[in-house]
Amino acid sequence: MIKIGVIGTSAITKESMLSALSTKLYKLQVVYSRKLESAQRFGEQFGVTEYETDLECFVNREDIDLVYIASPNASHFSQVCTALKARKHVVVEKPAFVTAKQWDTALQLAKENNTYLFEAIRTAYEPNFNIVTKTIKNFEKIDGAILNFCQFSSRIEDVYHGIEHNIFSKEHAGGAIMDLGVYLLHAALSWFGEPTDIDYDAQLLWTGVDGQGVIRLTYPTFSVYGHISKQVQSYVASEIYTKEMTLSIQSIDRITDITLINKKTNEKQILSVPAHPDRMIAEWQAFFDILQGKDQEFYQERLQIGRKVTEITEQLRRQVGILFKEDDEERG
Amino acid sequence: MIKIGVIGTSAITKESMLSALSTKLYKLQVVYSRKLESAQRFGEQFGVTEYETDLECFVNREDIDLVYIASPNASHFSQVCTALKARKHVVVEKPAFVTAKQWDTALQLAKENNTYLFEAIRTAYEPNFNIVTKTIKNFEKIDGAILNFCQFSSRIEDVYHGIEHNIFSKEHAGGAIMDLGVYLLHAALSWFGEPTDIDYDAQLLWTGVDGQGVIRLTYPTFSVYGHISKQVQSYVASEIYTKEMTLSIQSIDRITDITLINKKTNEKQILSVPAHPDRMIAEWQAFFDILQGKDQEFYQERLQIGRKVTEITEQLRRQVGILFKEDDEERG
Repeated sequence: MIKIGVIGTSAITKESMLSALSTKLYKLQVVYSRKLESAQRFGEQFGVTEYETDLECFVNREDIDLVYIASPNASHFSQVCTALKARKHVVVEKPAFVTAKQWDTALQLAKENNTYLFEAIRTAYEPNFNIVTKTIKNFEKIDGAILNFCQFSSRIEDVYHGIEHNIFSKEHAGGAIMDLGVYLLHAALSWFGEPTDIDYDAQLLWTGVDGQGVIRLTYPTFSVYGHISKQVQSYVASEIYTKEMTLSIQSIDRITDITLINKKTNEKQILSVPAHPDRMIAEWQAFFDILQGKDQEFYQERLQIGRKVTEITEQLRRQVGILFKEDDEERG
Repeated sequence: MIKIGVIGTSAITKESMLSALSTKLYKLQVVYSRKLESAQRFGEQFGVTEYETDLECFVNREDIDLVYIASPNASHFSQVCTALKARKHVVVEKPAFVTAKQWDTALQLAKENNTYLFEAIRTAYEPNFNIVTKTIKNFEKIDGAILNFCQFSSRIEDVYHGIEHNIFSKEHAGGAIMDLGVYLLHAALSWFGEPTDIDYDAQLLWTGVDGQGVIRLTYPTFSVYGHISKQVQSYVASEIYTKEMTLSIQSIDRITDITLINKKTNEKQILSVPAHPDRMIAEWQAFFDILQGKDQEFYQERLQIGRKVTEITEQLRRQVGILFKEDDEERG
């Protein structure tokens, strides 16, 4: 049983803890929040009675093995480092970091302290994601792809009315590419490898971050277009094209249907397995296996892709002038 | 009864003549081909016994009112001019012309000779196309669109094996943007108006024309992405986005389904009418009405959009280095 301490008391923290606990592999031990009330309110839902409001005390507790971090994006880095230095394993919500340099620092700390660091990019751990990866590996030649992750956020309406939420705030490293782009880029890099060229046609909000945009990933013989939006809602599948086939994927957010269509015969082959009703259970099972010493190659691969995704989002943000304080610090 | 003379004896000519004749408004009178045999073989299917192999003799016949032209793209211009000078109305298959300058010359000739000139862009005449146009006019603000017209052509396989077909030949002004792009651009200009900026991310074939690509149309407050391909097959709908709604259109090639989806309630409203089984009948009915003096504003609008589409394809081709002999002639 792995004992978890959590940072963050939001809806995503609750969902993730419900998933982790349902595996019977984890125990929620301690809740950290700067405000005791928030920690208590969150903890009570899980029957947890241990709270901390001091981060150093929290990460140094002997009764936790792993720290789960679901704070605003811009807070991840310092909290991850603090936890790793206290020799705790870390699961940090996506996007784990704002810059590749933060990744390098955190990976170095994990190595020095002999701890595991996981980015909770839930989609990449689900069985259907891996089915797509394997299917594509067998394609002789890819002719292109259109990936679509346009998911309307009701909070955008507040932005339209002049109210700034964390997820659309520059201060908290928000915006479409940070929130949705990372899923799409994790998929693209897992499926197609590293692109030779990248660019981003972004639409910026008054808050200074992107509400939506189109990411183009260029590969030697094809292009991948990624449509992302927190402003509009798309209902269509993503598609990957070959000379013979169209691989239809519904959807990047959560792959429930994978259909391989022969474009000449229109014959359809369903490749997907039923998706688990709990969308976060696969990652928690995978983290446990890795913590037990299994699947170390897969672990390293996810870290490398995670770091590369951040490097790419960083470059794309710079292209369109979305600079966070972390970028300034590094340049300064 | 309007008496037609046809140029071109291909499958598209046959389909179009079957549609025209089924309206009972037209009669197929004469078939022109450089080879008498081809003209006869085509004419026999319609019980036509008048053939011509000399273009001047053909267009000057007293027993035809209208010339329908479905020859390779690069042949349209001179044939259109020849027919207009002989004071015949002209219906020319899309893309009518290769350059905007050709449009200007042809429009001037039509004016001087008091004749009508129609581009047979069948999609734009169908009732569902107009339903989309009207629906969009009522949108307060558009947040973007992804239009998709990726239609695999079996002839691309010959190109892969080193064989050049007219539709993929530079000599005949072929390629994806000339063949499919014009449909997509007609739709975009009819629905969103003229863009402020355009660009084309094209993939060129060894024949020197584009097998597929992505057209970006920039408008002051949104972007329209148009995915076109003759190499791969897409199965997804096109989508137009607003703050409140997603308008789903299946498909640009032939609009059979238009669904307006409220992105908050997921409530769906079907706006399409049943599409006529004959996809070319609407244009032939429209041409007849216009020839009778009706819908003159609509006629002028289609000509203006047709010319603008050609101007845009010309600019996009130049961006990616697809230059036809017509371009060289004009520059030279």
